[in-house]
Amino acid sequence: MSEFKHLVLVKFKEEVVVEDVLKGMEKLVSEMDTVKSFVWGKDIESDEMLRQGFTHAFLMTFSSKEDFTAFASHPKHLEFSSTFSTAIQNAVLLDFPAITVKSSAN
Amino acid sequence: MSEFKHLVLVKFKEEVVVEDVLKGMEKLVSEMDTVKSFVWGKDIESDEMLRQGFTHAFLMTFSSKEDFTAFASHPKHLEFSSTFSTAIQNAVLLDFPAITVKSSAN
Repeated sequence: MSEFKHLVLVKFKEEVVVEDVLKGMEKLVSEMDTVKSFVWGKDIESDEMLRQGFTHAFLMTFSSKEDFTAFASHPKHLEFSSTFSTAIQNAVLLDFPAITVKSSAN
Repeated sequence: MSEFKHLVLVKFKEEVVVEDVLKGMEKLVSEMDTVKSFVWGKDIESDEMLRQGFTHAFLMTFSSKEDFTAFASHPKHLEFSSTFSTAIQNAVLLDFPAITVKSSAN
């Protein structure tokens, strides 16, 4: 069974303190055993036109689609999502089984 | 030094054979030692509204920003990008130093 990934691209509202949102996200992830790994980043290199206003990417990895579903419907996630949605101006979400072509073990 | 990630979200044109594009991408990645890992996926779960028309995510990881820069400016990448751009209806690119909050080693 392949790993399952939850990817979120975000543009925050101007008045939002991104560090505070990140703290909430880190707390959520640390409390949820279903989240296998969590990596994020702020774009520093892409062309303004090519990133279409998005500034941050958040990527969570789960052992299975079932673990993702359990996470997505968990009260702690729902509570965080509710707060999170008030902080964002725009977001894209993609949820997909991960197909690994090349592994970082190389 | 943190790893560097190159993230591409795509909606392909309707007439495009996605498998052919993927073959070209896999060939490129296999030939480029600067690409440390490569994972992709096709959304199967996100709400249509939340994914804003995007269907595929491609994520490449590099050991450093320098490796990414070398990859991005490599003739093989430029040649692929030229072909790739004719296959897509919409794309978002984000390039960022990866901040790992939780590791899959857990």
